[in-house]
Amino acid sequence: MDYLYYPDLKNRVVQMLPFTTLLSIDKESPQPIFLQIANNVVNIIREGQIKPGTMLPGTRELAKLLNIHRKTVIAAYDELYAQSWIEVIPRKGAMIAQNLPDLKPQRWNEPRSGSYGEFLAAPFYQMETHTPIVSVPGLRSPEFIIDGGYPDSRLAPLDLLNREYRSRSKLASARKWLPGSLGGGSPLLREALVAYLLESRGLNIEAQHTMTTHGAQMSIYIAASLLLQAGDAVIVGDPSYFMANMVFEKLGARLVKVPVDAWGMDMDAVEQACKKQQINVLYVIPHHHHPTTVTLSPQRRMRLLELSRKYNFAIIEDDYDYEFHYNSAPYLPLASSQHEGRVIYIGSFSKSIASSIRIGFMVAPADFIRQAIQMRMIIDLRADHVLEDALAALIQNGDIGRYLKKANKAYFDRLNNLCTLLDQELKGIVSFERPSGGMAIWANFNEAYPLAKVADAAISKGLYISSGIHYHGNPQHNNSIRMGFATMNIAEMNAAIEILCKVLKAKI
Amino acid sequence: MDYLYYPDLKNRVVQMLPFTTLLSIDKESPQPIFLQIANNVVNIIREGQIKPGTMLPGTRELAKLLNIHRKTVIAAYDELYAQSWIEVIPRKGAMIAQNLPDLKPQRWNEPRSGSYGEFLAAPFYQMETHTPIVSVPGLRSPEFIIDGGYPDSRLAPLDLLNREYRSRSKLASARKWLPGSLGGGSPLLREALVAYLLESRGLNIEAQHTMTTHGAQMSIYIAASLLLQAGDAVIVGDPSYFMANMVFEKLGARLVKVPVDAWGMDMDAVEQACKKQQINVLYVIPHHHHPTTVTLSPQRRMRLLELSRKYNFAIIEDDYDYEFHYNSAPYLPLASSQHEGRVIYIGSFSKSIASSIRIGFMVAPADFIRQAIQMRMIIDLRADHVLEDALAALIQNGDIGRYLKKANKAYFDRLNNLCTLLDQELKGIVSFERPSGGMAIWANFNEAYPLAKVADAAISKGLYISSGIHYHGNPQHNNSIRMGFATMNIAEMNAAIEILCKVLKAKI
Repeated sequence: MDYLYYPDLKNRVVQMLPFTTLLSIDKESPQPIFLQIANNVVNIIREGQIKPGTMLPGTRELAKLLNIHRKTVIAAYDELYAQSWIEVIPRKGAMIAQNLPDLKPQRWNEPRSGSYGEFLAAPFYQMETHTPIVSVPGLRSPEFIIDGGYPDSRLAPLDLLNREYRSRSKLASARKWLPGSLGGGSPLLREALVAYLLESRGLNIEAQHTMTTHGAQMSIYIAASLLLQAGDAVIVGDPSYFMANMVFEKLGARLVKVPVDAWGMDMDAVEQACKKQQINVLYVIPHHHHPTTVTLSPQRRMRLLELSRKYNFAIIEDDYDYEFHYNSAPYLPLASSQHEGRVIYIGSFSKSIASSIRIGFMVAPADFIRQAIQMRMIIDLRADHVLEDALAALIQNGDIGRYLKKANKAYFDRLNNLCTLLDQELKGIVSFERPSGGMAIWANFNEAYPLAKVADAAISKGLYISSGIHYHGNPQHNNSIRMGFATMNIAEMNAAIEILCKVLKAKI
Repeated sequence: MDYLYYPDLKNRVVQMLPFTTLLSIDKESPQPIFLQIANNVVNIIREGQIKPGTMLPGTRELAKLLNIHRKTVIAAYDELYAQSWIEVIPRKGAMIAQNLPDLKPQRWNEPRSGSYGEFLAAPFYQMETHTPIVSVPGLRSPEFIIDGGYPDSRLAPLDLLNREYRSRSKLASARKWLPGSLGGGSPLLREALVAYLLESRGLNIEAQHTMTTHGAQMSIYIAASLLLQAGDAVIVGDPSYFMANMVFEKLGARLVKVPVDAWGMDMDAVEQACKKQQINVLYVIPHHHHPTTVTLSPQRRMRLLELSRKYNFAIIEDDYDYEFHYNSAPYLPLASSQHEGRVIYIGSFSKSIASSIRIGFMVAPADFIRQAIQMRMIIDLRADHVLEDALAALIQNGDIGRYLKKANKAYFDRLNNLCTLLDQELKGIVSFERPSGGMAIWANFNEAYPLAKVADAAISKGLYISSGIHYHGNPQHNNSIRMGFATMNIAEMNAAIEILCKVLKAKI
């Protein structure tokens, strides 16, 4: 297009519009100038400041106005033409397209948080927020964090995983998968899981009984989505993992809470609940119950399996903590015994390797897994199969096994260290039962030391400690928290507890 | 424990049970022998083959029977004691714990797919499977794949991403985040998105208007979960992306289908639908509609925004294909114009970088994002923030921008190549409209060449091509598929089309 020969058109338009300001150019912007001009024209059209049918100034004229090369203006007009914002009238020039709807003037480029200030459309997204979640995007964390029990990624074989990932991402096999074949996860990892779960847990399964997810949470959500309908009853511990409760409540299920003591869920209470009403699902954390860290005893495990048969409910066995048991080998999962397909078994490498590695798995009957894979594709489509292939390699060559031995020893030392510190430094303030495994201690603080205040005072001294708000609602846990001991080494733990002592003593 | 001095006990038990077979040991297994013995004892207890109260043989006796060192047997008994499967009676020896429930005998270690053969518990997981998903776990793919339109990870800066990931996984900052603060994604990536989306799409937002997910599918699921309740109406194209339809149907919403022509969704049909009933959400793919690849015209974009105001519905703008537009710069998103917070904008790096990189994003009003983050935590907990931090670095240093330029050029060449091949080799068999962007061509096959048969014949010759089953139900698309042109280079595409030609010609 060339507007050179139609000077008669330009003045009218130029006088009408302050193009120099409207089409302001940012020469620092990585966006090419011709595109800035084109987009600015689009915007003033949208704002109604320039009407359909209006002629644009000639390219030479506009170039002079904006003090840029004419080629740039031509590129901008070509762009607008390609996007059909302008029409080219032979021997007249460029005109704003006629067929654009006429809009009321409104500025698009408002001050920040402009058009996204509030949400005006459907009201249905108002979700209950009765269960608080600590969510502080952008906020850097303090020097020390006493978390709820996470692994120390410094111990994990991330370098080895990374090397595997890197070499595998180059392989043609990393690209060559049938579309939609990865909803269940990397077939290599699913095969590796078969051997790994047989050796480590006595699970006698095939690949068709496994799938991977992005973590235990996703496994819980998928399993619950397939097992529960609104109004169904789910037995959970009192207290139980609050993020699992949120899943069940989100799905409209009723929580039936049964007491949890030193040996785990009270199975008499479970049977009473089953007699009262149809129970569809029971959710259990057999190793180191969340939050109280107790291990479900062998007798209760067998009783639970009996009850699931007698009252025909499904069991979601969330065994994320299986890998870390110090007093003995971990107990064989419910899923490894005869359960007639009633047990959905859940585990996670995000817990056993590093929180940032988002790989969990689920073991269930083949027909259940088929449905679960479809559900996974609906909420998440597919896995990062390259990362999962790399993990499979580390499982098969024994790196994961060696790392877990090392981590178990380190965490055992850290557990002992924390127990000693609490006994020596905080007797009378913090009481706890020493857990037989896992990555956290369930610490009950003396009522004289309200955790909300403690947390506030601690953060100002560079220590994050939970206010325990997740565990409220259960009277005897209104001043209790999980004190994770795995992510900090001995020196860091000593320093963190020293801060905590200062905070607590200061309040005496 | 030492059973040495109680030989009187052992014979009874040893004669009663064939321990040598029951406690069979696999010396090849990575599982320690003492643990194999302990687990086997647990299993025969569970099977009821050995009753509570029964005495176990002495350690020396059992060691002799199994032909192993006595220390190993002691370790096994210690293990059983620690797991409370056995009790130690002073001066008598080891006895199976009295308080175990008595179970009917049943073999736990059945032939494979035993206890996981079928699912017996709740019936509610039977999900409608009316929309088929190709899911072939474990199946390696053929030599050539004509997919539905995916990026070529060979062009992507995966090495750079990997290097960033590696160095960042070592940083303390990678570990130090407040628990629960990563549900919205890496704060670094959210900040990078603010600049990136302003430059590339004219989106004028803050970090609080952004969140990351594990991909566009998860973004669609989260947005729809917040916007829709059972019975609500969602306008979708006819045809539209079937995986999005599955989300809406899974949530119990009604699909209101409006025609899609060469300029995108028919907005007159949209307005008619709005007059007939309350519309809650409209789902649109403005760049290269799935499956038909058409681009929503500027007029219709403006009309759509008007309609969303007039009838107050929310718009889910799935713009996953934004980065790849060849005839011109991509069109500014609906989200970049004045929409009063009605537009939920979705994009994905899984589409722009590599399918295996599971990072998508969503832009919405701050209050919506807060709810969306909570929903994300319920279904998926959190992101791999290390990988997201690495991606943020690549966005900020320009590597992603440079890669996208390179990929656009390569895909444009591949599009031209496929168009030429189809015109020259398959005229009369395959008809199509050349798309202005994206990674696929919408190819309509002559009825004389039923795609189901074509796909079967092709796979036997090492070429995967879809049977088009996803697009059935819409009469005029019963023999159409998306032919992706991005994952194969020119040579590979030529070879793949040559196979396709052979298959098609053979059927004439």
